Amino acid sequence: MQAVTTADLERLLYDDVPYGDLTTEALGIGGLAGVMEFTARDPMVLALAEDAAALLRLSGCEVELIAASGDRLTAGAPILRAQDSASGLLRGWKVAQTLIEIWSGVATATREIVEAARAVSPGIAIACTRKNTPGTKRFAVAAVKAGGAVMHRLGLSETILVFAEHRAFLDEPLAATVARLRRAAPEKKLITEVSSIDAALAAAEAGFDVLQLEKFAPPDVAAFVPQLATTPHRPIIAAAGGVNAGNAAAYAQAGADVLVTSAPYMAKPRDVQVKIGRI
Amino acid sequence: MQAVTTADLERLLYDDVPYGDLTTEALGIGGLAGVMEFTARDPMVLALAEDAAALLRLSGCEVELIAASGDRLTAGAPILRAQDSASGLLRGWKVAQTLIEIWSGVATATREIVEAARAVSPGIAIACTRKNTPGTKRFAVAAVKAGGAVMHRLGLSETILVFAEHRAFLDEPLAATVARLRRAAPEKKLITEVSSIDAALAAAEAGFDVLQLEKFAPPDVAAFVPQLATTPHRPIIAAAGGVNAGNAAAYAQAGADVLVTSAPYMAKPRDVQVKIGRI
Amino acid sequence: MQAVTTADLERLLYDDVPYGDLTTEALGIGGLAGVMEFTARDPMVLALAEDAAALLRLSGCEVELIAASGDRLTAGAPILRAQDSASGLLRGWKVAQTLIEIWSGVATATREIVEAARAVSPGIAIACTRKNTPGTKRFAVAAVKAGGAVMHRLGLSETILVFAEHRAFLDEPLAATVARLRRAAPEKKLITEVSSIDAALAAAEAGFDVLQLEKFAPPDVAAFVPQLATTPHRPIIAAAGGVNAGNAAAYAQAGADVLVTSAPYMAKPRDVQVKIGRI
Amino acid sequence: MQAVTTADLERLLYDDVPYGDLTTEALGIGGLAGVMEFTARDPMVLALAEDAAALLRLSGCEVELIAASGDRLTAGAPILRAQDSASGLLRGWKVAQTLIEIWSGVATATREIVEAARAVSPGIAIACTRKNTPGTKRFAVAAVKAGGAVMHRLGLSETILVFAEHRAFLDEPLAATVARLRRAAPEKKLITEVSSIDAALAAAEAGFDVLQLEKFAPPDVAAFVPQLATTPHRPIIAAAGGVNAGNAAAYAQAGADVLVTSAPYMAKPRDVQVKIGRI
Amino acid sequence: MQAVTTADLERLLYDDVPYGDLTTEALGIGGLAGVMEFTARDPMVLALAEDAAALLRLSGCEVELIAASGDRLTAGAPILRAQDSASGLLRGWKVAQTLIEIWSGVATATREIVEAARAVSPGIAIACTRKNTPGTKRFAVAAVKAGGAVMHRLGLSETILVFAEHRAFLDEPLAATVARLRRAAPEKKLITEVSSIDAALAAAEAGFDVLQLEKFAPPDVAAFVPQLATTPHRPIIAAAGGVNAGNAAAYAQAGADVLVTSAPYMAKPRDVQVKIGRI
Amino acid sequence: MQAVTTADLERLLYDDVPYGDLTTEALGIGGLAGVMEFTARDPMVLALAEDAAALLRLSGCEVELIAASGDRLTAGAPILRAQDSASGLLRGWKVAQTLIEIWSGVATATREIVEAARAVSPGIAIACTRKNTPGTKRFAVAAVKAGGAVMHRLGLSETILVFAEHRAFLDEPLAATVARLRRAAPEKKLITEVSSIDAALAAAEAGFDVLQLEKFAPPDVAAFVPQLATTPHRPIIAAAGGVNAGNAAAYAQAGADVLVTSAPYMAKPRDVQVKIGRI
Repeated sequence: MQAVTTADLERLLYDDVPYGDLTTEALGIGGLAGVMEFTARDPMVLALAEDAAALLRLSGCEVELIAASGDRLTAGAPILRAQDSASGLLRGWKVAQTLIEIWSGVATATREIVEAARAVSPGIAIACTRKNTPGTKRFAVAAVKAGGAVMHRLGLSETILVFAEHRAFLDEPLAATVARLRRAAPEKKLITEVSSIDAALAAAEAGFDVLQLEKFAPPDVAAFVPQLATTPHRPIIAAAGGVNAGNAAAYAQAGADVLVTSAPYMAKPRDVQVKIGRI
Repeated sequence: MQAVTTADLERLLYDDVPYGDLTTEALGIGGLAGVMEFTARDPMVLALAEDAAALLRLSGCEVELIAASGDRLTAGAPILRAQDSASGLLRGWKVAQTLIEIWSGVATATREIVEAARAVSPGIAIACTRKNTPGTKRFAVAAVKAGGAVMHRLGLSETILVFAEHRAFLDEPLAATVARLRRAAPEKKLITEVSSIDAALAAAEAGFDVLQLEKFAPPDVAAFVPQLATTPHRPIIAAAGGVNAGNAAAYAQAGADVLVTSAPYMAKPRDVQVKIGRI
Repeated sequence: MQAVTTADLERLLYDDVPYGDLTTEALGIGGLAGVMEFTARDPMVLALAEDAAALLRLSGCEVELIAASGDRLTAGAPILRAQDSASGLLRGWKVAQTLIEIWSGVATATREIVEAARAVSPGIAIACTRKNTPGTKRFAVAAVKAGGAVMHRLGLSETILVFAEHRAFLDEPLAATVARLRRAAPEKKLITEVSSIDAALAAAEAGFDVLQLEKFAPPDVAAFVPQLATTPHRPIIAAAGGVNAGNAAAYAQAGADVLVTSAPYMAKPRDVQVKIGRI
Repeated sequence: MQAVTTADLERLLYDDVPYGDLTTEALGIGGLAGVMEFTARDPMVLALAEDAAALLRLSGCEVELIAASGDRLTAGAPILRAQDSASGLLRGWKVAQTLIEIWSGVATATREIVEAARAVSPGIAIACTRKNTPGTKRFAVAAVKAGGAVMHRLGLSETILVFAEHRAFLDEPLAATVARLRRAAPEKKLITEVSSIDAALAAAEAGFDVLQLEKFAPPDVAAFVPQLATTPHRPIIAAAGGVNAGNAAAYAQAGADVLVTSAPYMAKPRDVQVKIGRI
Repeated sequence: MQAVTTADLERLLYDDVPYGDLTTEALGIGGLAGVMEFTARDPMVLALAEDAAALLRLSGCEVELIAASGDRLTAGAPILRAQDSASGLLRGWKVAQTLIEIWSGVATATREIVEAARAVSPGIAIACTRKNTPGTKRFAVAAVKAGGAVMHRLGLSETILVFAEHRAFLDEPLAATVARLRRAAPEKKLITEVSSIDAALAAAEAGFDVLQLEKFAPPDVAAFVPQLATTPHRPIIAAAGGVNAGNAAAYAQAGADVLVTSAPYMAKPRDVQVKIGRI
Repeated sequence: MQAVTTADLERLLYDDVPYGDLTTEALGIGGLAGVMEFTARDPMVLALAEDAAALLRLSGCEVELIAASGDRLTAGAPILRAQDSASGLLRGWKVAQTLIEIWSGVATATREIVEAARAVSPGIAIACTRKNTPGTKRFAVAAVKAGGAVMHRLGLSETILVFAEHRAFLDEPLAATVARLRRAAPEKKLITEVSSIDAALAAAEAGFDVLQLEKFAPPDVAAFVPQLATTPHRPIIAAAGGVNAGNAAAYAQAGADVLVTSAPYMAKPRDVQVKIGRI
């Protein structure tokens, strides 16, 4: 399925070509028939291919989608093939290409973390934060899923996650906070961010379901986990803050259940080679 | 001025908080008064601060904007200060922060290229491509300008830029192409991308106004420029493809008039420190 | 805070008055100054008052909002007072009134269930389903919260809730399903709907966090709950299907932790009396 | 024809599933082929079936629409049949079902009033008010028409309807008001709401085309109608305020030409049974 | 009140200046303070002044609106005065100016027809058709009203107007058609377009409320009107098709009650002089 | 390709028929099959035919598009043929017709200027201003191109055009302004509007690329052009202000390279004859 609505894809296309393609029109080549092929220039985990294909269809092209989002492609692997007049091909070309390049970059980087961590701890989950570029959330979520991870949270309306910034407005024992949250949101897990081992132990004791260890180095995580041995309901341990492909294995080794990361959003786009020719 | 409409900013805010802030509501702290301060954690060229402030106002906050987009901030420099109930502060916090962080990253990276190039060639222009994340063009343009560069093109409707992909549909001498474009678009400069010195010379001779040298190394640019000495109307030389802060000076030294780059869009976000407290 | 964006409220106002108020214009009274007062005709729990006030402001009125969403109002209690020319008052009148009437009906009905259940079981939660009129979700959520309940789920993107309709596509032991869900969504509670005591026990044993008992009569709930005594992690018991103000206490008495209901969406609107006069 | 635009239906679908269907994805069943059937659980007048079918098509399904909006269905009658992968079926399921359930409730309740009244007075018209849930007007109008009624007014821009709230700003004889309205809106009928027999007679004498008798009991209507015998242009008599299926026949018997009602908007949804299976 | 929503005005402004004002930015003058004055260059009936002022406010300006839509302005009369930095003034300038110029042209042309007709027949109404530029209906309606006319119909949803194109699908006596329409739409006047005196008489006899005489010359109208003398309910006579300021008096003299015209939409814009200066 | 998005076309259709076609529904003819043909009543250059066809398809019609935008049609030439039930035909009819009529008027008027000028000066370009009705820019651009002209500018974001209103904020020699603009926008031509021969000569000397001669009569243009003989880089001469089909040849004769005009936007619509019949 498309990550965004067709109306959204139309908007992207008209954002780039609001009043026609001046160069193609001035050259008078718009009516000539052509073909366009997208292939992976580098190895990549593909993302947003369905949306790119839909966008090219909106531009008038007949599109054969050869690979699917989530696929791992080798260099040179075909992604899609589009046929249309030059005007349709040239109009949709760059937006479709950029859409795949940028979000496949995110998917690929996500997959690297997933694989690094799972090589050590097969059951570990990777959760990406909501710190993506404002206005691109649907693309970001699709890319994260294509990469094999899940979203940590989609926004503020569907999760309970207590930060120090909330506690600044509270003046009560942690257990009282937990009791109130439990009543208010019985169908949600209660998550809290903690910045020290002491705070983490206190949160565990108070009854939080998930402890988000903020900027704990892997050895700190490893030191902390055994201290939960005696907790009646061992909480989920989520490592967050600086997690990336380089240290994911170490965090997994240290005993984290979940790795929370924003790193994939900073990934370099993956190159898609585009060939356009006359037919 | 805001880069995007108020309706767009509302959409970003409700994208993140579509049905209220569950944690804050469950904690029952929404009505308490607080203050929030944004400061630069690292040095940065600030971007989208006006939009972030407008977004916080939409969230209910009274906002004092202390710095302006385009400003160079030192670590610790204040950006803005917002006052409201906890509900308004916590709702707008992350979107406003992320907006500034990501686009200040782009502005900062842009500025680095601008300064590297201008140190060598004060009159040189830096032009960023349209290869930004689909759906974020208005933010991208604002960040590019905050960084001191211009846009190479906004889309396909307002510039004449002939690629090899166009020429694949043409079968005529270059000069004939130029003559047709000149008639069709007399108020535009005619730009073409070329991939070799021979192609560049042919394009210059045919009369293009701007030659976009694709993936020429700086020495290639330097070798090429003197060959235009005898051209009656020396075209503008734009270096494109792989231009970044590391080689911008070399390209400037080589004689390019314009550096065309997508590099800033891959910049790391710049950290904004947020402090929220009760008042 | 408003439940919906200002752009959405503008759309509601222009939906009702797309091309001006024909009667007021034909009468030529638009420019005369007036005042409009909203009061509760019946007792009610107020909802969407902030949005109604914002809508009247969009219509040009100066508005004093006297009561807040979530307030319990007695018959005759004032809600808001608006001043403007007749054109502004008459234009916004009915949409603002209807918005409050319909959603206060939902809030009031929600509150009745909440109070009936909490009289018996003070810690019980009431969760409303997503079975509201398509296109009104933000209003529905706001009314549910004004009534003192929470949303069972906002949509399909943020909760794990396994129905028989999912199991029709599965062919594995329940425990295997739970194990896969646990890995895929470690930060979510796992919820499943069950239609019999046997199915409920199986789901509890398999490890679901929340059992949604579909159309269990209160005595069935009461019979079931003690059977969980030996389960290591006693799941949350949610009663669903036909829960309403009349049987909420019985369900609470029977030991349900959460009552899941769509009943409030069918509530009768609560009457708001509107007085408009010349000043 | 669809009551709303395809873009609006897309919005409803993405409102419910903004970032994918978490449960189906976590279960890994999205790619399995299935079939879904909607049937009437109770007798109903069907509404919004075309929009529901279009929404399911947007979700990816191949849909056979078996019944049409406006059809009277017996319990068990088929409505539609959809085929797709589980992901497409499960994504569109509830929104499509709820759309039909809620608005078929309105259509069914409308039809009850229409039939009760027409059994007594075959030429009588039933007109539903604009007091529907803000934001759902297009659905409401479609359901009202499916039920066999018409809209009393669509909003403020296309009808002349004088309330006491307008007269509060006027200070002239009624006949002068009518004369001004007649000049201002020669192609419209002039309607006024009246609350007493004396006011109704005065309005008739002044020349209004339609008298909307607000909260007249049927005997009051019956007492009033003969008093118009001597009026040169007998106005249309519309009974309004509290009209419902229980008293519609009495109002018809009393001589009303039009029944104006909001009652159908409070109707209980009609149940649609949904069966989903693997194929 | 504004004819369109603020979100629509924002869209107009960003349509013209989607990514900033390149010239003003390149000149580096955006921050200098200035003032802008709009005055009528020619005599005109002003329209859309409130929307233009609102648009300038969206552009950042402080605006004093000196005249109101509907006002008759002499050459040189002031319309509005705006103050802001050069960037705000220059950004909003042309869209605001064009909005007033084009729609004041429509309002002025409307007023000419109104006055020509009313000089002869003071009670006559002028009704403009819906044949305005698609996408501009709210502006068109506002300009028509500013000119002193009304809308003939807003669209297809709120009026009964039978054309020959409808009758092509009917096969029944006209009176039967009228009877059915009367039952279906008891609160609407029944309008029909006729192209000959015979057809007009037949429509009158069948009971239509309004006869729209299509392309009758004034003498034809004059010849027709007396023939209605014996009709029990004399219908409203609307002259349509080619009505303009030049023949409006003749149509009024001929006895038409309503003049239906599209002519004002073809009016020449009225010039607004704009002066911008530094302060 | 469509000038506007499908979502925009849907909006136009629902603007005209927001809640169904009342007349067709009341007549009960909606389900009868029919055919509709559009032909040119007058000679015209066709515009927006693709959008009109797409709009009719949205209304449910099967459409055969016989002519293309940009085609010159003789009176009686067929444009399109649509088949559907009466409801689909009658719903889309007028919006589709008006869209073609109004914008073909613009295209035809544009073509007249183009041909008048090119008869004298085959290489001359006609550029239409952005002074079109706010909210219709995409249609206007499509019509201008159908007429054979180009857009002078699309808005403020993509061209450098210096007016006296900018110079009011500057205090420097023109050459300094040009130098700054050249650095700021090296890939753009620099355009300036001038109102006298002296100003034009100064601008040429200062180095502007295009001189827009505002309200120069053709003899003034003819007098000015030879004075550029000695300028090293002869600028493009654009005549603007009052250019129309009547004087275009004279301006071309006088030596202008580009004619800048708003005249086509005031063109009379071209009549499209619509025939609808039963089949």
